[in-house]
Amino acid sequence: MRRIGLLTSGGDCQALNAAMRGVVKSLLNSGEQIELYGFLNGYQGLINGNYRMLDWADFSGILTRGGTILGSSRTPFKTIREPDENGHDKVEEMKHSYYKLNLDCLVILGGNGTHKTANLLREEGLNIITLPKTIDNDLWGTDMTFGFQSAVDIATQAIDCIHTTADSHGRVFIVEVMGHKVGFLTLNAGMASGADIILIPEIPYDIDKVVKAINRRKEGGSKFTIIAVAEGAISKEDAKLSKKDYKKKLEKSPYPSVSYEIAERITEKTGQEVRVTVPGHTQRGGSPCPYDRVFASRLGAEAGRLILKGEYGFMVGYKDREIVKVPLEDVAGKLKSLAPDATIIKEAKMLGISFGD
Amino acid sequence: MRRIGLLTSGGDCQALNAAMRGVVKSLLNSGEQIELYGFLNGYQGLINGNYRMLDWADFSGILTRGGTILGSSRTPFKTIREPDENGHDKVEEMKHSYYKLNLDCLVILGGNGTHKTANLLREEGLNIITLPKTIDNDLWGTDMTFGFQSAVDIATQAIDCIHTTADSHGRVFIVEVMGHKVGFLTLNAGMASGADIILIPEIPYDIDKVVKAINRRKEGGSKFTIIAVAEGAISKEDAKLSKKDYKKKLEKSPYPSVSYEIAERITEKTGQEVRVTVPGHTQRGGSPCPYDRVFASRLGAEAGRLILKGEYGFMVGYKDREIVKVPLEDVAGKLKSLAPDATIIKEAKMLGISFGD
Amino acid sequence: MRRIGLLTSGGDCQALNAAMRGVVKSLLNSGEQIELYGFLNGYQGLINGNYRMLDWADFSGILTRGGTILGSSRTPFKTIREPDENGHDKVEEMKHSYYKLNLDCLVILGGNGTHKTANLLREEGLNIITLPKTIDNDLWGTDMTFGFQSAVDIATQAIDCIHTTADSHGRVFIVEVMGHKVGFLTLNAGMASGADIILIPEIPYDIDKVVKAINRRKEGGSKFTIIAVAEGAISKEDAKLSKKDYKKKLEKSPYPSVSYEIAERITEKTGQEVRVTVPGHTQRGGSPCPYDRVFASRLGAEAGRLILKGEYGFMVGYKDREIVKVPLEDVAGKLKSLAPDATIIKEAKMLGISFGD
Amino acid sequence: MRRIGLLTSGGDCQALNAAMRGVVKSLLNSGEQIELYGFLNGYQGLINGNYRMLDWADFSGILTRGGTILGSSRTPFKTIREPDENGHDKVEEMKHSYYKLNLDCLVILGGNGTHKTANLLREEGLNIITLPKTIDNDLWGTDMTFGFQSAVDIATQAIDCIHTTADSHGRVFIVEVMGHKVGFLTLNAGMASGADIILIPEIPYDIDKVVKAINRRKEGGSKFTIIAVAEGAISKEDAKLSKKDYKKKLEKSPYPSVSYEIAERITEKTGQEVRVTVPGHTQRGGSPCPYDRVFASRLGAEAGRLILKGEYGFMVGYKDREIVKVPLEDVAGKLKSLAPDATIIKEAKMLGISFGD
Repeated sequence: MRRIGLLTSGGDCQALNAAMRGVVKSLLNSGEQIELYGFLNGYQGLINGNYRMLDWADFSGILTRGGTILGSSRTPFKTIREPDENGHDKVEEMKHSYYKLNLDCLVILGGNGTHKTANLLREEGLNIITLPKTIDNDLWGTDMTFGFQSAVDIATQAIDCIHTTADSHGRVFIVEVMGHKVGFLTLNAGMASGADIILIPEIPYDIDKVVKAINRRKEGGSKFTIIAVAEGAISKEDAKLSKKDYKKKLEKSPYPSVSYEIAERITEKTGQEVRVTVPGHTQRGGSPCPYDRVFASRLGAEAGRLILKGEYGFMVGYKDREIVKVPLEDVAGKLKSLAPDATIIKEAKMLGISFGD
Repeated sequence: MRRIGLLTSGGDCQALNAAMRGVVKSLLNSGEQIELYGFLNGYQGLINGNYRMLDWADFSGILTRGGTILGSSRTPFKTIREPDENGHDKVEEMKHSYYKLNLDCLVILGGNGTHKTANLLREEGLNIITLPKTIDNDLWGTDMTFGFQSAVDIATQAIDCIHTTADSHGRVFIVEVMGHKVGFLTLNAGMASGADIILIPEIPYDIDKVVKAINRRKEGGSKFTIIAVAEGAISKEDAKLSKKDYKKKLEKSPYPSVSYEIAERITEKTGQEVRVTVPGHTQRGGSPCPYDRVFASRLGAEAGRLILKGEYGFMVGYKDREIVKVPLEDVAGKLKSLAPDATIIKEAKMLGISFGD
Repeated sequence: MRRIGLLTSGGDCQALNAAMRGVVKSLLNSGEQIELYGFLNGYQGLINGNYRMLDWADFSGILTRGGTILGSSRTPFKTIREPDENGHDKVEEMKHSYYKLNLDCLVILGGNGTHKTANLLREEGLNIITLPKTIDNDLWGTDMTFGFQSAVDIATQAIDCIHTTADSHGRVFIVEVMGHKVGFLTLNAGMASGADIILIPEIPYDIDKVVKAINRRKEGGSKFTIIAVAEGAISKEDAKLSKKDYKKKLEKSPYPSVSYEIAERITEKTGQEVRVTVPGHTQRGGSPCPYDRVFASRLGAEAGRLILKGEYGFMVGYKDREIVKVPLEDVAGKLKSLAPDATIIKEAKMLGISFGD
Repeated sequence: MRRIGLLTSGGDCQALNAAMRGVVKSLLNSGEQIELYGFLNGYQGLINGNYRMLDWADFSGILTRGGTILGSSRTPFKTIREPDENGHDKVEEMKHSYYKLNLDCLVILGGNGTHKTANLLREEGLNIITLPKTIDNDLWGTDMTFGFQSAVDIATQAIDCIHTTADSHGRVFIVEVMGHKVGFLTLNAGMASGADIILIPEIPYDIDKVVKAINRRKEGGSKFTIIAVAEGAISKEDAKLSKKDYKKKLEKSPYPSVSYEIAERITEKTGQEVRVTVPGHTQRGGSPCPYDRVFASRLGAEAGRLILKGEYGFMVGYKDREIVKVPLEDVAGKLKSLAPDATIIKEAKMLGISFGD
């Protein structure tokens, strides 16, 4: 008999259910006796001992369903060592839940923040396996995360829609794509939808270069310009500020998000009206795309295999087209980001895409 | 030989190309000799004499393409009698373009504003046929407009995506759907996506009723609530203001749109975080849905038939499941709106949807 | 306390779940006490007394789900008066199930065959309400059935995909669309996807006219031709046969379906290779389109209202843009079909579409 | 001045246009003077000297368009050395077209057959660059081909649709997925859609094992079973036949395709009705998915870079997440196939998927 806990933490994304179904299917198909405990709403459920027992029926038909059947929440790593609302140490509470249920392993699905806490629990002696979930694809140690391709698809569809209306009206349009720290999602959605300008956190932009790219298009006879802007796009001047000063600046900003500021600056410099569209949370939602369903299922299957072999303390990741295990201590606290001189950026530039640099 | 002009005016939407293709296919299939003139960027092209000759190849393959191959622009009816940038009377300029090309008829695709100008041109003696284009479905004289169902599809997809993330995080989510004056689009997208609360211009809301509906769901065990809010949703208090005063209030509002204000008021009254998503212009874009492709093609075919019979001065509309012609003078200046006691509203309420009233 | 039975019968389609959810939501929101019994696998469940009690949770989240949570089966009307596998009279068994559970009403969702049996049960004294389900839109007494628009969407997507490959290879392609008796689905999918030729049961085709239409396209410079063929398309010669003789002929036919025969005849007469694609059962499956979700929900809500008022013996239908009740005795045994001279057919012809007549 | 020829050969697929746009955008953005010649309908155009000059406008807006603007055809490698319809040697004709236009390079997009001919032309002294196009993903020398992921998406959607109807009716359904020689597409679409059994050419099946898997599901309480069958699925007995004998057997087979034979054998052994759906050519059509658009654009950009550097004789491929160049002589005549013991197969088995082996 193996007793396995499951939890999903952080902002939700597509294929969380597919990944959990993969873990559970591979455990149940192994022939061993398994008991499944699902902690509700992320680490919160582990802290409060809020769980429910799961059986196979809970995982039937969820391959294609967005969201997470366990619910999720953000539990900031920063405050993980602070007492919870009952004055108890959160880490101790989590360990208590784990040991009380006599778990053999806890499977945690999440992104960067989640992995820091997962590694902490590993250091505290718990048996942990993690799966890389994030639409940002910014987890260190894996070439790909699930949720990413689904989010690319949704953001691309949004820009596709904007394309026809931009063309009809001869307008400049900004579509703001999710990604505060990394630009993978914006870059891929922008390339997939034929965006003319792509602004990402990794490549601070010069507004004059952006304006120049718009004007170059106009001179070439193109009536419209599509700009894909990551939430974390930053100007060259702002990039010189300290992190703290920039944060302050953002807090005082009169703009709902960076896109609106960029829009205003383009209008100032060109006299042209600029429209902003923010697909927002739609990018995390809906049914996972086929790529993510296969990918998350494979990761889940391998997680099941590690559990059956008793190999703990790993994130199941993807390297050079193979599913691999990566030590949690290597993953925690690191961020994978897009090098400004990555081949894909060079290729995008060859295609005539401006990064405003 | 018949010489036919075409123009698309106002905010673009799906199936403009499909409708024009319908007109042109039915004209060309009639066996008569036809010359086609496409005015560019709406009435602006007619005013400036900016057109290009079109042939069949221009319409091949555009059935499924969003936007308009002729471009569009907004030319406010209010200023139609004011001189243009060259000091010339706009109406005279338009007549000049029409007569100079010796047109037999001008086919105009547009929404409410467009129809006022179209009727004016009819009064000035031009042969006009119009087609009802708008995602708002608010044109008087027709049960349906093309663009509407496509916009419902896109807005529904957006709310579908939000549904999974709202469920995972147990959050209140507002999705702002297009529609400043009428609620057809918000109502249909809201019903299609299982929204719990729908706020539309026709039914001013009481924020306490909205909060009550959220709380009722919470008591019933539902962790999340989805609210579909039309751009023109209005509170009961604001609905008491004069149109002018409300407009002033909106201009001074610190919120980017009404949804953000509603979100803040819900947070004040419930302590719950509320997220806002604004799919925006995506709702006008992308490939038309199959319903709109068939519908717009049928309207176009009938427009062709009217032209061949020399019956001018009509909008081609849809009544009781038949394509009909409606005198332009009846259409111009009127708005079709959703009665607060319409059967569909009653049905929505039977399904448990709250309108905050 | 009201005790309501539910069953879904016949070939499944999209929005069955949405419709049932509508019924149940409107009953539960009424404030009255309701008990729900779901019979499994269509009339089979009613005959065998195979049911399960349902509560609200069963209907949560099913608005967007294809298929039917109750399962379905075909129970031919022809054999309804024959004894079942246990030698019992089927109608008596159904009545037995109804009375044993002391039901106030039985809600039946189905198409033409289903309605004949539903009316029989009404004649036998049961309280029956029905909802019009079929992708064929061939139910008498209602302008629209749910499932239809979703099936149009899927068939249209299939033809859209074929369009690009037909164009690339300069080929003649047949796409076989569902519909043995009526052509609504093929006509709408064909018009929506720009099919060049549409063959439907209501308009027997002349293969030489079909060939002529293909050749006319070739002469006009179009490399490819798309033909949308209904499953029940029939040639002029075959249409002269008695129903019985034609059935025999079909049974002996070496072709998997009529499309393959049409393809071969075109090849014989033109020397051109013709490819056949049969999307088949995909047309009944997947998530309902937004139109069907709204429509089915509205029908369901009105069914709930009729039940609460004790008005039984009706199909809830749609007439002139209003939800209406239609006496079951009027519906049973009739078929709605497309008149060969319907306005939409004329419009399709104006657009240059050939029906091979 | 560089003179570049382009042609697309073999069965068309998604993202051919995106790839060509990538080549052309990168050439035009380089600042060098470029002349573009598009040969029509594959090698046929090169043989007949049938081409048209292309400019940038031809490539505008085609990123999202399926098919190929140049047309395609199959020119079997087997007959490439035979004289054409005018009695001329085909290879000499192709060289003639190349030299007559004084081309610097010919860019060829195609699959396995296409690459054999492309390599022959290289051997004959022409400057050739190729791009890997096929929904089968079976090209040697590249981890991925464009068209593959788009085809996975369409096949997955088809199986998704079948899933709901199979569930409603408790049926066994076979969906036949493209792939005569390799099973990548079937495997991925099957895993993405939760197919229960997957039959591919690489793993000959035992019909008794297939039946056993169906029965195991029934015993586990699952009413339905979904089987994804590759066009080239083969039984263990047939796999023992010589290639020639098996070909003969297929030619004599009374079944339209292998799926129908498998269906009949399952029915014989279980008494259960089995339905077959064949999405067919839809799998090659429609708009490319965002993954393919990015991927094909990147390949195109790199092809442009090689041309500018004068590096000829390569296929542009994808290895370990980088775009690479692979010598044509290494690619030609080889097939990439799925090892029966590949990790992904093992993972699929862990998930409970049966391969009938």
